[in-house]
Amino acid sequence: MDLEAVYRDLHAHPELSFAEHRTAGIVAGHLRALGLDVTEGVAGTGVVGLLRRGEGPTVMLRADMDALPVEEDTGLPYASRNPGVMHACGHDVHVTCLLGAVRALVADDGWLGTLMAVFQPAEEGAGGAAAMLADGLFERFGTPDVCLGQHVAPLPAGVVAYCPGVAFAASDSIRIVLHGRGGHGSRPETTVDPVLMAASLIMRLQTIVSREVAATESAVVTVGAVHAGTRGNIIPDDAELRLSVRTFDPGVRDRVHAAIGRLARAEAAAAGADREPEVVVDNSFPLTVNEPAATERVAEGFRAVGLTVSAVGPASGSEDFGLFGAAAGVPSVYWLLGGGECDSNHSPRFAPKINPTLDVGVAALANSAKTFFLQITR
Amino acid sequence: MDLEAVYRDLHAHPELSFAEHRTAGIVAGHLRALGLDVTEGVAGTGVVGLLRRGEGPTVMLRADMDALPVEEDTGLPYASRNPGVMHACGHDVHVTCLLGAVRALVADDGWLGTLMAVFQPAEEGAGGAAAMLADGLFERFGTPDVCLGQHVAPLPAGVVAYCPGVAFAASDSIRIVLHGRGGHGSRPETTVDPVLMAASLIMRLQTIVSREVAATESAVVTVGAVHAGTRGNIIPDDAELRLSVRTFDPGVRDRVHAAIGRLARAEAAAAGADREPEVVVDNSFPLTVNEPAATERVAEGFRAVGLTVSAVGPASGSEDFGLFGAAAGVPSVYWLLGGGECDSNHSPRFAPKINPTLDVGVAALANSAKTFFLQITR
Amino acid sequence: MDLEAVYRDLHAHPELSFAEHRTAGIVAGHLRALGLDVTEGVAGTGVVGLLRRGEGPTVMLRADMDALPVEEDTGLPYASRNPGVMHACGHDVHVTCLLGAVRALVADDGWLGTLMAVFQPAEEGAGGAAAMLADGLFERFGTPDVCLGQHVAPLPAGVVAYCPGVAFAASDSIRIVLHGRGGHGSRPETTVDPVLMAASLIMRLQTIVSREVAATESAVVTVGAVHAGTRGNIIPDDAELRLSVRTFDPGVRDRVHAAIGRLARAEAAAAGADREPEVVVDNSFPLTVNEPAATERVAEGFRAVGLTVSAVGPASGSEDFGLFGAAAGVPSVYWLLGGGECDSNHSPRFAPKINPTLDVGVAALANSAKTFFLQITR
Amino acid sequence: MDLEAVYRDLHAHPELSFAEHRTAGIVAGHLRALGLDVTEGVAGTGVVGLLRRGEGPTVMLRADMDALPVEEDTGLPYASRNPGVMHACGHDVHVTCLLGAVRALVADDGWLGTLMAVFQPAEEGAGGAAAMLADGLFERFGTPDVCLGQHVAPLPAGVVAYCPGVAFAASDSIRIVLHGRGGHGSRPETTVDPVLMAASLIMRLQTIVSREVAATESAVVTVGAVHAGTRGNIIPDDAELRLSVRTFDPGVRDRVHAAIGRLARAEAAAAGADREPEVVVDNSFPLTVNEPAATERVAEGFRAVGLTVSAVGPASGSEDFGLFGAAAGVPSVYWLLGGGECDSNHSPRFAPKINPTLDVGVAALANSAKTFFLQITR
Repeated sequence: MDLEAVYRDLHAHPELSFAEHRTAGIVAGHLRALGLDVTEGVAGTGVVGLLRRGEGPTVMLRADMDALPVEEDTGLPYASRNPGVMHACGHDVHVTCLLGAVRALVADDGWLGTLMAVFQPAEEGAGGAAAMLADGLFERFGTPDVCLGQHVAPLPAGVVAYCPGVAFAASDSIRIVLHGRGGHGSRPETTVDPVLMAASLIMRLQTIVSREVAATESAVVTVGAVHAGTRGNIIPDDAELRLSVRTFDPGVRDRVHAAIGRLARAEAAAAGADREPEVVVDNSFPLTVNEPAATERVAEGFRAVGLTVSAVGPASGSEDFGLFGAAAGVPSVYWLLGGGECDSNHSPRFAPKINPTLDVGVAALANSAKTFFLQITR
Repeated sequence: MDLEAVYRDLHAHPELSFAEHRTAGIVAGHLRALGLDVTEGVAGTGVVGLLRRGEGPTVMLRADMDALPVEEDTGLPYASRNPGVMHACGHDVHVTCLLGAVRALVADDGWLGTLMAVFQPAEEGAGGAAAMLADGLFERFGTPDVCLGQHVAPLPAGVVAYCPGVAFAASDSIRIVLHGRGGHGSRPETTVDPVLMAASLIMRLQTIVSREVAATESAVVTVGAVHAGTRGNIIPDDAELRLSVRTFDPGVRDRVHAAIGRLARAEAAAAGADREPEVVVDNSFPLTVNEPAATERVAEGFRAVGLTVSAVGPASGSEDFGLFGAAAGVPSVYWLLGGGECDSNHSPRFAPKINPTLDVGVAALANSAKTFFLQITR
Repeated sequence: MDLEAVYRDLHAHPELSFAEHRTAGIVAGHLRALGLDVTEGVAGTGVVGLLRRGEGPTVMLRADMDALPVEEDTGLPYASRNPGVMHACGHDVHVTCLLGAVRALVADDGWLGTLMAVFQPAEEGAGGAAAMLADGLFERFGTPDVCLGQHVAPLPAGVVAYCPGVAFAASDSIRIVLHGRGGHGSRPETTVDPVLMAASLIMRLQTIVSREVAATESAVVTVGAVHAGTRGNIIPDDAELRLSVRTFDPGVRDRVHAAIGRLARAEAAAAGADREPEVVVDNSFPLTVNEPAATERVAEGFRAVGLTVSAVGPASGSEDFGLFGAAAGVPSVYWLLGGGECDSNHSPRFAPKINPTLDVGVAALANSAKTFFLQITR
Repeated sequence: MDLEAVYRDLHAHPELSFAEHRTAGIVAGHLRALGLDVTEGVAGTGVVGLLRRGEGPTVMLRADMDALPVEEDTGLPYASRNPGVMHACGHDVHVTCLLGAVRALVADDGWLGTLMAVFQPAEEGAGGAAAMLADGLFERFGTPDVCLGQHVAPLPAGVVAYCPGVAFAASDSIRIVLHGRGGHGSRPETTVDPVLMAASLIMRLQTIVSREVAATESAVVTVGAVHAGTRGNIIPDDAELRLSVRTFDPGVRDRVHAAIGRLARAEAAAAGADREPEVVVDNSFPLTVNEPAATERVAEGFRAVGLTVSAVGPASGSEDFGLFGAAAGVPSVYWLLGGGECDSNHSPRFAPKINPTLDVGVAALANSAKTFFLQITR
């Protein structure tokens, strides 16, 4: 298995949430070739590989597999061949590194225990982790003693960065539908213009972070998408906004949610709309919290094998990785893998360096697992 | 030919600009059955029917055939069966009435001349009239002495309303693409947010009419569509706005166009965008001007046959009908046909009364043509 | 009396509404010198001069006297010597021309009747005309048979422009107080920021004219003043807006007023304010309507003496002059006097040419009066 | 000296920056009565009192004296008698507590050294600390070994809260003047409306914090005041905004300042203004940094005398207190004094509890000084 070739192939063939059929097939093939006990179709496209090696702890290593609805603009030779879909968040790196880590652990006879390699679908706001748990992940494959994972980010290539305690923000995906009353573009006075409502609300939503969140608190309210109408000479009935909210504190989260609802309703009142807007929370991720003792243990392990390690503060990104440890009632540790300076994740130009990123990602996963397995020496 | 059945069928099967294949086929069939010399495929889906009856003037009657990308919300038994497409501007009424008028003129032996029935594709901002002229309409079928047409509107049912001189506004369809720089929804500081740019520009565009156009002037600037992004947690690269501009004066039109460009460029500067926005005029309709003498002649004809006639002022709607008379260098007259009080044209709930609308529309077209033909009595 | 010297002196010493003490004194002095029966202190600073000459009609000529709170920026040698006060609307021209017209009529023995020269205070939204009527203008000095007046405007110098029927818009002065909750500039989260409320409302108010008034209707909604706070590090409790609304139709006026209230209340709801905003109509002027027959008679008189006359459409300016004719139940005629191209009235740079403006203004007033007096020839 | 009476009197007679004449007189009187060597008129209204007691360290205790342009709304019996001026930031508490601390230290014979009591004018953004240093504070009265001070805040009454390291934000007061072109309120098309420019810019300024500052960074951009125009029917030439910016990091500060300038210039471009806006930094405060060792020493001293002590994080407030320690090159320590839950500082309703606030504030100042003096026991 040529890891770099695997990565280039996965990057060129990105698949959206719960549609990771090709990716899952490739993953399952490699895991079988490596001798693992493989189950496909967990929560649709999820894959679980088990390697049981005598008495010892069970360590779960997790990689997410899905891509994003982004039109790639990297100009890379291995750029996406699926129009409008791109591995813009590096899940292809995650999958490749986990395959490499499994191979390394298979080849390493210095440990006892059970390796549980979890390839998760639909991390991008689609609830893949919750779906795997609902599909009986731990009941069917056993409950791990620790959950480990990593995420590639635009940090210096080859660095592993960790953050004990709260590491990632809580996240909420919110959809707002504003209801106006459509009509002819030349006769706005006969309508309630939802395009105007959307514009006014987007401007007003900026004030939640600028006015209602303290300097000593933290929140992000992003309107990532707005859609209304078909052409200039038709005023449509409705407009739709898609928001992403990031918070680190439940009280701030409640305040932000309340403000979003208040502003949306006030916008409808301002416009003289007949109907209240719909404000729907499509899904939510909790805070990602790294258990401090386990985190330090992992970081020491990194240093022991000579990886470049740095401690960082909490990031505004979000993850559903934390759900596994919470469901199992065991520690979880999640770290960042430096992919080199480039555009941020989700950008059409997000392009991590292949190396040393893959090598370090493989070493980090394999090594962190070993720190929890029963070490043996022959 | 049961006109009401024809109307219900056309309404239930709306077709978008230049895709009026089924409609054109139905039109051609009826015209042939009525004995006209019929040519299809003029400018793609246009149909021309000729009825030559001795020496006399050539009168052009025109109906437009295309529907709009609107999801019908009338609940009518004959509502659109094409999802997302609707006869929301009453062109089905226009087609039906013109077929009825042709039948009436065929049955009427009191006139001499040439009837030129023109069924135009793509009036909805897609340049159908210009396309027919470019396809040699007058070279191939002769140049008329007068061009006549009508438009159904939410006026009292059965009324015909006319306006000598300037009757409809000039119209411009403008597309603006704002270029930001995409990234992760949780890290706006790494991006230039085009959703925010779109919202701020839409708010600012309102000020053209409120601040830069005098109370004694007139203009409409509508943003009928805004589209950006796919989901909350991805900040996209770009946002697209679609505008419709209506003006009655070239100086005001120039000022409005200049202001749109100025505001779009300033928005890019405010956002710190790397690229200038694109501001493109997709198409333009001139003022629709009714030749006063011919208009009074038509109105007198209406009164003579007992139609309810009212004089109205200019409307902010627009038409490419005027291009025919301008190209032929002959008078043109265009009037409004009352379809009964209802939502405005282009609304998902636009629903003219079938009767007396169809009867009056047929009488108005047939009678206006006769006022220009050579009258004979046997 | 050197009219040009009178004008320069009045311009250099502008006085605000109901504070026209110096101006009134100068007016009264000249009127007495011309032999009129003069009464001062009508509605505070108003002056009425009567010249009774035998049996004949009573003609009221009116000039307004007050200046504006504007810092003059004309650089004229006779610029205002009162800091922050300026004759930015040309009432100094009106006063000077009326004095000149009185002198001309005194010197002219070709008429019989009663000349009623009314110098009104406080035309600038402060209700001077209503105050003079309330102070018994017509009971004390007789009811005129016609009311005449003029206003200088940036039209070609020496032109008189008239408009039969509706000549000026109805006007409403509206004050809005938005109630937030103040606090420390570094802790907006503890406050409801009224500066933000004011900004958001001002942007939203633009949409009344851009979206809620038809292209075929007409309205102006200007926020001429906004005031909130004292310094950057204190968020104040309240913000105050001062609006001027101009309309030509009662229905449009009602719609605009309703929209202003709706938007102000919605803004308070958006901000989560504890208190409703105050929306107060401080004063209103009705439409200024020129009685058509009398207007044509005046215009003919102008032409007869060789003035350059042009017919114009309605203007968005407003006047309380119309109240006199309405109260007396007699025709009133009001025309525009060209002062030459310059910045618009109320601009710090409004600067009408002294001549031919004064000469034409004097001739227009005197001549219009004569057209209604009893003409005699000896 | 009845401290509570002193406080009520000072609160009832607030004085603005550099106008603290009455306050300074009262302070000087009490200091002299307590036997200190008093100098008035330092930097205008500043007062310095010295108490030399043998060999030992020099400890500077500082209180600021100025009030704010706020209309008091507490309804307290001792509310401000100066209309529009209020001790809304508790400097009256600071002065009273320092007088009490001086009295306590005078009565305490357990220490040797020099007490330097500094009563500073004009802390509220007017540069009082810099002015005292420029007036030779340390050259004339000696350089202290440590600088100590406190600020009352809406924390639980009687609590002292401290923060080692960065304790308060850097602050910048910024003034923006937007230049439009004035004219008549009924003719906006002849003007460039600065009220609209101000509103649009205020909305756009919100986006600096919401879009250009990361969730893991911190900044406040408050527009505390906006002023434009005099009345609805005059569109003014200019509008003025007063901003307060708070940051904790020089890089963030630079980014925020750059964004403010960029947005102001873009607003002028959007409006088609002839002149660039003025963006002026009126004054700036640096970060307030508590020297960690000295801070812990002060906190231990508090605990030793049984005060309720809590450690807190950095606050977004700002201070010029830090300039003293920086100029002297010695440690400085600044803590918060709980005045009880109430509206935030600068609110018209800011009302700290008199007790235990005064008692604790006196004890905190006196005790913190003693921890640095030479302790003696007889």
